Amino acid sequence: MSDALDTLLDPVLDARLKGFPHTHAPLRRSAIGETGWNVLAGDLPLPIALIKREAMEHNLAWMQKQVRAWKIDLAPHGKTTMSPQLFRRQLDAGAWGITFATVRQLRVGIDAGTRRALIANQVVSDADLHGIQSLLASHADLRVVFLVDSLAQLALIERWSTDNASARPFEVMLEIGLPGGRTGCRTHDEALTLAARLHASRAVRLVGIECYEGLSAQGTNEHDEPFARALMDRVEAVARECAARQWFETDEVLLSAGGSAIFDLVARRLTPALGRPVRGLLRSGCYVTHDHGSYKRYLKAVDSRQLCTPGDSLQPAMEVWALVQSRPEPGLAILAVGKRDISYDLEMPFPIRRAALGTLTASGVPASWKITGLNDQHAYLRWDASNEAAAPVVGDRIGLGISHPCTTFDKWHWMPIVENDYRVSDAVSLHF
Amino acid sequence: MSDALDTLLDPVLDARLKGFPHTHAPLRRSAIGETGWNVLAGDLPLPIALIKREAMEHNLAWMQKQVRAWKIDLAPHGKTTMSPQLFRRQLDAGAWGITFATVRQLRVGIDAGTRRALIANQVVSDADLHGIQSLLASHADLRVVFLVDSLAQLALIERWSTDNASARPFEVMLEIGLPGGRTGCRTHDEALTLAARLHASRAVRLVGIECYEGLSAQGTNEHDEPFARALMDRVEAVARECAARQWFETDEVLLSAGGSAIFDLVARRLTPALGRPVRGLLRSGCYVTHDHGSYKRYLKAVDSRQLCTPGDSLQPAMEVWALVQSRPEPGLAILAVGKRDISYDLEMPFPIRRAALGTLTASGVPASWKITGLNDQHAYLRWDASNEAAAPVVGDRIGLGISHPCTTFDKWHWMPIVENDYRVSDAVSLHF
Repeated sequence: MSDALDTLLDPVLDARLKGFPHTHAPLRRSAIGETGWNVLAGDLPLPIALIKREAMEHNLAWMQKQVRAWKIDLAPHGKTTMSPQLFRRQLDAGAWGITFATVRQLRVGIDAGTRRALIANQVVSDADLHGIQSLLASHADLRVVFLVDSLAQLALIERWSTDNASARPFEVMLEIGLPGGRTGCRTHDEALTLAARLHASRAVRLVGIECYEGLSAQGTNEHDEPFARALMDRVEAVARECAARQWFETDEVLLSAGGSAIFDLVARRLTPALGRPVRGLLRSGCYVTHDHGSYKRYLKAVDSRQLCTPGDSLQPAMEVWALVQSRPEPGLAILAVGKRDISYDLEMPFPIRRAALGTLTASGVPASWKITGLNDQHAYLRWDASNEAAAPVVGDRIGLGISHPCTTFDKWHWMPIVENDYRVSDAVSLHF
Repeated sequence: MSDALDTLLDPVLDARLKGFPHTHAPLRRSAIGETGWNVLAGDLPLPIALIKREAMEHNLAWMQKQVRAWKIDLAPHGKTTMSPQLFRRQLDAGAWGITFATVRQLRVGIDAGTRRALIANQVVSDADLHGIQSLLASHADLRVVFLVDSLAQLALIERWSTDNASARPFEVMLEIGLPGGRTGCRTHDEALTLAARLHASRAVRLVGIECYEGLSAQGTNEHDEPFARALMDRVEAVARECAARQWFETDEVLLSAGGSAIFDLVARRLTPALGRPVRGLLRSGCYVTHDHGSYKRYLKAVDSRQLCTPGDSLQPAMEVWALVQSRPEPGLAILAVGKRDISYDLEMPFPIRRAALGTLTASGVPASWKITGLNDQHAYLRWDASNEAAAPVVGDRIGLGISHPCTTFDKWHWMPIVENDYRVSDAVSLHF
């Protein structure tokens, strides 16, 4: 293992990092599974964000099984976890490659061993173009594909390429977008005009068509099925026309879509007959840990379409545990966990488990318990004050479920992986 | 400089960190000022969060001048920045100590040279009590004071102390809280009962009284003046009674309050006559960079009470710069910056400056420009589509102001410090 890879995959963790025991000597990540630490035994300071091994491994295997059934490949979005060890697990499970949002993320992924990468974003700056080219130059077996959605962007790439005549052409996918949405060409004609120019350009090679459906999902079949069908019809129409006109510059055409909300609806549409090989690439990222909120709700609709039994598909694998630091008035507990530690962008965390001080077992919590607010370092846990008998006490540990894994992962430098009894059996490092 | 201090104050930065040039060799933080990099010259990949040196240094000096005038001291909240270099600047400017929210933050602060520390939180767990005791044992000149607000918390501390008989008593401040608020004793009687028990306990030494007013501020004199007066009357009444009963266990009594919203209203009340020395400690943390949103609005009221000219007091010192990656429809630009990079917890970022591709100067932007949404890695910039002439183009750089410094700082590992022409003259590291 090279030094760089060693540092990335097996860094030394120490007490300056959130969640690492205050008085323990620094440890290599790979040694953490041998410590015998247990979260409920108080071996790690709280708050701590943790990943449950069984659920996470189930999710990795389930999604890989799904894409095989759909005859497509997985290029999971790495921006969710930014974890070299999870990238490795995804690749080992069979992922075709890893998707990134930025060139910086791409570098971390390459250092972790990724050799096929999508950047699901428009690359426009000289710094980023130069960064990609430099990574390609230093890794002969590396493939990087990014998105283009405008002539203005292509003009910037061409200008850079003119100034860097020895550079390799960039592999690009043309992005199809939604009116009122984010990036991507809004109309068929706009896409075709751009595709012709991409084909004609010596700075880029058109290798596929891409879209992102996730932001428009609503979680109901009534909305999501016709929505996804209409979008994928557009993608297919552009792909067919590019194929018919011989505008793709590789034998195999890449077709890519996929967030984590209605991934099944787009996955089935990623292998149209184009008269040449097509590789469908699903980019879902949040499936690794799934969640207790937003994605859990979307999954209900996925399960209904897949005819799966809930629990057979994705399982929530991330929890954040925190201490009750104060019980200042009836119906209110203050937890020592806040915006620095847990997602709050879609909704508040959910109290799901409780371990009284001194116990090694976690039990459920009353349904009336709610997190009603977060400050930087505090959470407000409220309940029906007429039921004080079951109320938490100072020193209790509360397990919180999350909504939106991306914005919990990005608040930590490492996370323990735990067994179902909260014994720490492994750890991952995170590079946001 | 010890190795540990060296690593903390002058770490090696590299291209795996957001904002560091993709193709540059790793550099010590202290060497970054010598690179000649300029943000507007494209020397750093965007997005980048930066600190403007002149405004930041003005803020450090202004707040120190204020506390001197109020005859109190500053123990600024370190959770805002978690930057060893900014802690050093605050201490060098005259701060009495630094405040932290957690034992992990405390350790980083101590490693950076802090020797007087407040933990503005209830400490309750064995792991955290042990961590503090271990830090005290290894730093003879270290003082750590934390908050107590309940008999239940005191019982946990006493149990730990019984099990650790050689431990030093913990220095504590009793916290006064607000009904409906966060932590702290709600009533005078509750506070007095707790104070008597703190005085009687051998596990702790009562050294002061504390409150936090910031969450209840509204930014109007009509509300905030009577609110702060009533709260500080309560703090003073408890302090007087504890002093009269000889319950404080140090000669000098600590009285502490202070967020960054109405800090002037509490600062003036931190030195009541108690018949013994009193040290008022203001904990404001966000003043270092101030902001373009929430704190800017609060400052208007502070300025009116101080009879300051706006701009003579705090100045916004943080900006986040991002690229226009797409202009997919009229009135909409997509910026390559998102929830991973900039505050969104109080309100959306504000477009404040623009630098066209290829220029080294930043100009203002039309007032109609608004950030209307953020995804993990994207921002939506909208404007009046009838005014397309002044619209941004793909490749433009947009400077964003922020609301709430804490939640932008915590998304970065380092930030450049820039001169007013965006030349990089220094850098800080961040330890969230």
